[in-house]
Amino acid sequence: MAMDNLKQFLVFLFAAAAVGFVSIIFVIRWVLHYKEGLAWDGGLAEFNWHPVLIVTGFIFLQGIAIIVYRLPWTWQCSKLMMKFIHAGLNLLAFIFAVISMVAVFDFHNAAKIPNMYSLHSWLGLIVVILYCLQLVLGVGIYLIPITPVSWRAMVMPLHVYSGLLLFSSTIAVALMGITEKLIFGLNNPKYKDLPPEAVFVNVLGVLLVVFGALILWIATRQSWKRPSDEILHTLHTNGGGEDSTRVGPALSQLTEGTDAEPSGDVRRRSNKLDDQIN
Amino acid sequence: MAMDNLKQFLVFLFAAAAVGFVSIIFVIRWVLHYKEGLAWDGGLAEFNWHPVLIVTGFIFLQGIAIIVYRLPWTWQCSKLMMKFIHAGLNLLAFIFAVISMVAVFDFHNAAKIPNMYSLHSWLGLIVVILYCLQLVLGVGIYLIPITPVSWRAMVMPLHVYSGLLLFSSTIAVALMGITEKLIFGLNNPKYKDLPPEAVFVNVLGVLLVVFGALILWIATRQSWKRPSDEILHTLHTNGGGEDSTRVGPALSQLTEGTDAEPSGDVRRRSNKLDDQIN
Repeated sequence: MAMDNLKQFLVFLFAAAAVGFVSIIFVIRWVLHYKEGLAWDGGLAEFNWHPVLIVTGFIFLQGIAIIVYRLPWTWQCSKLMMKFIHAGLNLLAFIFAVISMVAVFDFHNAAKIPNMYSLHSWLGLIVVILYCLQLVLGVGIYLIPITPVSWRAMVMPLHVYSGLLLFSSTIAVALMGITEKLIFGLNNPKYKDLPPEAVFVNVLGVLLVVFGALILWIATRQSWKRPSDEILHTLHTNGGGEDSTRVGPALSQLTEGTDAEPSGDVRRRSNKLDDQIN
Repeated sequence: MAMDNLKQFLVFLFAAAAVGFVSIIFVIRWVLHYKEGLAWDGGLAEFNWHPVLIVTGFIFLQGIAIIVYRLPWTWQCSKLMMKFIHAGLNLLAFIFAVISMVAVFDFHNAAKIPNMYSLHSWLGLIVVILYCLQLVLGVGIYLIPITPVSWRAMVMPLHVYSGLLLFSSTIAVALMGITEKLIFGLNNPKYKDLPPEAVFVNVLGVLLVVFGALILWIATRQSWKRPSDEILHTLHTNGGGEDSTRVGPALSQLTEGTDAEPSGDVRRRSNKLDDQIN
């Protein structure tokens, strides 16, 4: 049973990684094969860094950052170390997003195209600002050890909700960006004539939605959650003995395929003090 | 405490309803004041039914359908009746979406514009097809009484996940549609010159995202869930006495502001047999 649940997790993880990698290959092929390539020259080749950095950084890395606690081979690492990896990946994703925006502003200014007029730009900027806020608050509340435990518990549902909402919004804003670029970038044949580039990039858009859906599925399965440190410690001490009542909840967490919350004593206590609070 | 939690719920519900209504007013003002109005004539006035029906039906009604179980004044109604309302609202939203698509195809065919070339059209059609599938499976599994209880329990996490994913995707597709329409529909001044119509419709796009965020927040708070029928029955029988240990979990569900799962005996049992399964 534990094996079944683990196998199911690995299938979804592999699918997400595969779709993510294919998306990155698609966006790179888009700008190198169909478009002007990559450069930092104020021209269209500089603009092309925008989709490349958004897909590899702000979408793929952000997605991995969200599910990094769920990887079973990281459960032997300390929670603190995993928090640093989670925060580090998110910081990297944020830096990619900022550079990608600089590329657009540079290009717009050189080509005398106005900035910040489209819904894509409005929502994109809002998402990047809120993502920065989420990063600062996350580090302030969960990595700096002075925050009271009660605060951490109170803010955790909001942290999770905002994280998933910002990730979904990032993909929605990317889809609007693809729409804009295909309309503005295709002439003779136009977007409505559906040339190969249009089909290729439409498929990229569908892949991004599938990647988002897989990450959201992995992130919201309770039975794939990292067990609390207390339970992991007990598992190691007892050698994972299945007949120990103290580890029952942790094991049921690993074995149950459904979303039912394990509700034994250890789980309830450690959950409150570790998983949901830290 | 119960009052605090109820008040908080009502604030979010009022905000969602208000943002939803303002969005509907915005989309109607868009087509009546800035565009060609509404008609069923194969022209632009027929196309205008597309955004109007999507915002009022496929976004607003779908959002209400998602949170209809959470309205405390419906908890005296039977679960079966609430299921019919949930399914009915979703069916209505689906019908609005289908009519809105007919309007676009009609307009495209009359104006000799190709159909189904854009990412907006691809993802929009996928969402409507999957929404239809979700509706048929939902009725088949939860409204037709022959499905085994074990099936219902197994499919519920998927039903909830798909519902929220389709709702989010609907809004993402609408944002792409707004982007297309502002690019194609604005000439002298163009979209990039940011005329009043562009600002107005960009604001509509932001409102749709806020509406989606509010519905997703309401739908994912555990403490705002409809209590199971068994607990409601006990509450009525006991007059809601707070010292009854049997209703403890139900009350804690109403009073806790956090997302912690109540895990007392009654809650665990009835949860499994009613809330999560039916």
